[in-house]
Amino acid sequence: MTNLYSNMNGSDIIITSRIRLARNIKDIPFPHELDENKSNEIIDKVYGTLSGDNLQGIGPFHLVRFNNLSSAERFSMVERHLISKELISNASKSATILNENENVSIMINEEDHIRLQVMMPGFKLKEALNYANELDDIIEGKIDYAFDNKLGYLTSCPTNVGTGLRASVMLHLPALSISKSVGGIRNTLNQVGMTIRGIYGEGSSSECSIYQVSNQVTLGLSEGEIINSLIAVVSKIVDQEKAARQVLNEKQGKELEDDLYRSIGILKYARMLSSHEALNLLSNVRMGIDMGIIKDVKPEVVNELIVKVQPATLQLQSDKELSGAGRDELRAAIVREAL
Amino acid sequence: MTNLYSNMNGSDIIITSRIRLARNIKDIPFPHELDENKSNEIIDKVYGTLSGDNLQGIGPFHLVRFNNLSSAERFSMVERHLISKELISNASKSATILNENENVSIMINEEDHIRLQVMMPGFKLKEALNYANELDDIIEGKIDYAFDNKLGYLTSCPTNVGTGLRASVMLHLPALSISKSVGGIRNTLNQVGMTIRGIYGEGSSSECSIYQVSNQVTLGLSEGEIINSLIAVVSKIVDQEKAARQVLNEKQGKELEDDLYRSIGILKYARMLSSHEALNLLSNVRMGIDMGIIKDVKPEVVNELIVKVQPATLQLQSDKELSGAGRDELRAAIVREAL
Repeated sequence: MTNLYSNMNGSDIIITSRIRLARNIKDIPFPHELDENKSNEIIDKVYGTLSGDNLQGIGPFHLVRFNNLSSAERFSMVERHLISKELISNASKSATILNENENVSIMINEEDHIRLQVMMPGFKLKEALNYANELDDIIEGKIDYAFDNKLGYLTSCPTNVGTGLRASVMLHLPALSISKSVGGIRNTLNQVGMTIRGIYGEGSSSECSIYQVSNQVTLGLSEGEIINSLIAVVSKIVDQEKAARQVLNEKQGKELEDDLYRSIGILKYARMLSSHEALNLLSNVRMGIDMGIIKDVKPEVVNELIVKVQPATLQLQSDKELSGAGRDELRAAIVREAL
Repeated sequence: MTNLYSNMNGSDIIITSRIRLARNIKDIPFPHELDENKSNEIIDKVYGTLSGDNLQGIGPFHLVRFNNLSSAERFSMVERHLISKELISNASKSATILNENENVSIMINEEDHIRLQVMMPGFKLKEALNYANELDDIIEGKIDYAFDNKLGYLTSCPTNVGTGLRASVMLHLPALSISKSVGGIRNTLNQVGMTIRGIYGEGSSSECSIYQVSNQVTLGLSEGEIINSLIAVVSKIVDQEKAARQVLNEKQGKELEDDLYRSIGILKYARMLSSHEALNLLSNVRMGIDMGIIKDVKPEVVNELIVKVQPATLQLQSDKELSGAGRDELRAAIVREAL
């Protein structure tokens, strides 16, 4: 299964960089005010801009409609960060456009008509922005965007008005999680118009210590300013995570090593694994690899498992509908197999 | 390292059978009233009866004095069930006589002058009693025992007067432990003059579900009666353990399997293991093997580890004095190595 993590080179603290541009079509109401016919017109219109041949080597793209997909297929796309939950809550009126390796996803009729998303493994915000801008130019060449000379791009939610840019970086922060430092970082980030949140699990907690740092404000800032301040902030968090790992290693080296190895032991032998436990253990193993403590597990395997063990993506790997216990068994089997 | 468990054939619920005969020498005060000189005379006298050549193929025997042994060496002998703690609390006045494979241990100047102990793997109370009687006859051929025609053999503690026989069976009862049934069994046994107690750990709890069932009363019963009633009681407990395992398997088969496999995973990967945790996990693995759930671990390996992981025996496997954490690391390393 293709997923972002499979593209990762090695096992860094920074997992992926993501750029999302919010765009709307001129003189058409925002999606929540549209009926199905009108929504479908927009889907066709946007997809039309990318289905031609003259795309400067970008593409090919294909359209994904949700009415043909099972619930597991839809939610697996959320788990793989291709689309938002909001997009499928409005499944009859929405769609997404994907490229072949699924690092581009252009959501249509989410909160805005167009949410163009580009993801790249590692710390590549500028590269992702360049790629997103190329795609944006192609679409803008054929569609008039809602744009105000003073405000910039107009969006459904005021926080996106301006550049319409949300830049984010996905980070693996196990040592900062263990030392309970993420709350402090959150407070600091809020003061500079940025945010950090757990990717898996509810609210601020993160089941496998994977967090997303992103800008909150787009109005009054240029794209370059947004990207540069995010790069500065993320670089600082990476340094903090490295320092926290070193402290952890110095203060509780043996306990840490024991903990990380036990995580492999359980992953390799358990017959039932909840999503919560599996993610926590995989996070431990990932940190162990990063820190040079664990040497006999390949980081790519762990990275792939982080996606494969999630409920909907897991369901897709079975040919029958699974109960909770059934999922826990299949999850354990897949983990054992992979490790 | 030789230990009882290495002789075990397979992995039954019944681990070992043990016979212990308490004897005292006529007209000499019980050990607690003797000074060092007199104690040493007794040691020499008893060892003298077994150091000759004419022992009907039994032997050879060697004498172990405790003043030459380190604390770890002494306590390792306790952990291997060769001697009692009481014997080494009186180390300057006591000794034991061992045969080569250490299934015979004749403690001298414990509570009684002589405590002759024979252990055999499996359910072999009668065989062990026959062997003990042979040895007893050899000693009695050269030493006059304190014996009363009405009461039988006289012993320091009234509960041993009569045959001086304590027969015991060591059992692995994980399912009865899990279902908290040992307390009920204890009450029943007390009513018929028998007792059950945990071998490792304090009081009634047992760290690796290994228990010893033995007779409490010797007066007024023949050796045969004691052995037969113990055989009957133990057979019943074995049936109860089997039934409890079946219930466990039927009611929580998947959880049980998960639990047992996780135990192997942790044993194989942990970098630190306390004695308590190691024994619990080894007990799980042993049950898993018995129940046919775990197939890739040899029972003999588990049985040996149950002794090897204990604190004093563990210390003997290192050339330097170990701290608590050092023992936990060595224990984990030995377990990993063995599995």
